[in-house]
Amino acid sequence: MKNYKAVISYVGTRYKGWQGQKDTDMTIQGKVTAVLEALAGHEVDVIGSGRTDVGVHAMGQVASFRLDPGRKITPEEIRDYLNRYLPEDIAVLSVEEADDRFHSRFSCVSKTYRYRIYTSPVPNVFERKYVYTYTEHKLDVVRMRQAASLMVGEHDFASFCGNPHMKKTTVRNVMSIEINETPDEIIMDFTGDGFLQNMVRIMAGTLIEVGNGSRVWSDITGVIEARNRERAGFTAPPKGLTLMKVNY
Amino acid sequence: MKNYKAVISYVGTRYKGWQGQKDTDMTIQGKVTAVLEALAGHEVDVIGSGRTDVGVHAMGQVASFRLDPGRKITPEEIRDYLNRYLPEDIAVLSVEEADDRFHSRFSCVSKTYRYRIYTSPVPNVFERKYVYTYTEHKLDVVRMRQAASLMVGEHDFASFCGNPHMKKTTVRNVMSIEINETPDEIIMDFTGDGFLQNMVRIMAGTLIEVGNGSRVWSDITGVIEARNRERAGFTAPPKGLTLMKVNY
Repeated sequence: MKNYKAVISYVGTRYKGWQGQKDTDMTIQGKVTAVLEALAGHEVDVIGSGRTDVGVHAMGQVASFRLDPGRKITPEEIRDYLNRYLPEDIAVLSVEEADDRFHSRFSCVSKTYRYRIYTSPVPNVFERKYVYTYTEHKLDVVRMRQAASLMVGEHDFASFCGNPHMKKTTVRNVMSIEINETPDEIIMDFTGDGFLQNMVRIMAGTLIEVGNGSRVWSDITGVIEARNRERAGFTAPPKGLTLMKVNY
Repeated sequence: MKNYKAVISYVGTRYKGWQGQKDTDMTIQGKVTAVLEALAGHEVDVIGSGRTDVGVHAMGQVASFRLDPGRKITPEEIRDYLNRYLPEDIAVLSVEEADDRFHSRFSCVSKTYRYRIYTSPVPNVFERKYVYTYTEHKLDVVRMRQAASLMVGEHDFASFCGNPHMKKTTVRNVMSIEINETPDEIIMDFTGDGFLQNMVRIMAGTLIEVGNGSRVWSDITGVIEARNRERAGFTAPPKGLTLMKVNY
């Protein structure tokens, strides 16, 4: 059994997320697994770096898996086989042989997610499925950056956890949040050693509430200290979120 | 009746083109007309700068129309009303009052179309509906530019006309063809005073045949002189084509 690392991109719109509870038919993991099992002729365990929610996209999700196809096959052939048989909203960017100890989730050092807020009153038909359109109020990016700076660092992010039954630690280290503005968009890049369920979307929703003035930026410290989901902002819609990169 | 000029963008994938022969239900013109008639309370004649084919996109199609809604309404209100009721793959970028003599087709001085060829072996899931993927052979951009330079100018483009029953003149002036290359794409911008049916797609297909070596670049002069559709190349697929701009 050789161990492989694959970088995968997908448009999440049609899918029940990277991994489902039961129905694997409309998950990205399920689609990739089915094609790899057809290639290898044996059961394959496809391990993602983490689950992306229903409707969330990826530019660089990473998966690891072990194959023993019983014949010589190059990583490029595995990549091309996957791209030939996967639906056209899932693409494998690269496949490489990995060290036997490599594990897409446990070996992960950090991840970067991007949240795109589309702020122009004129819709963009080409990008509409990849952005969250927010035009009700003008967003104050300076205040959003101030609020974001209070989120950076190692904190208990229980207030930003979408799973009310979370039993493991909710402490995470957010290494950076970069907020950039274009004429039509506000783009927020979150890098951390790991993110809780819905965490990036709740951070994004909370930052939008700071930006539109319904919440003051200095409020964030109290929100974190409360360890109470109800103190943070709304969960921003999945369509604006993309997993950009997983670092090892 | 006031005369208006609207700039419209759309993803053409689902539509039977800007304007259909009979069924107007799934045409962009049909959708825009229905919303404007609901707004104005009278029949509206929506005139496009030209027809885009089934599946072709637009960043900046221009339409003109006359409205008499019987009450004061600003161009911005017309734009917002359209964007509220149009399907989300059609967006109106701007509406402005136009001179009474303005006519989107007759007043047009030139148009720019973009044809995008995606050349990377790794699919791009986010852009896949807006590009034509061609990976069979490497395309030689230098030769494509040489061939394109022979297409530029005023010529009889009958060889590049998709309508075998064309009775009017097939002479057009192609002002420029710019071909740019990125690591993943070849982008071709065609500007002309007008284009025949399928003309940009046949030019694009012919340039691809030059790029892949199945046709020599100097062949183009003979193709134009022949005034015979069979001498030109294949009609490149509509998904790669976008009407970028209409100049007045």
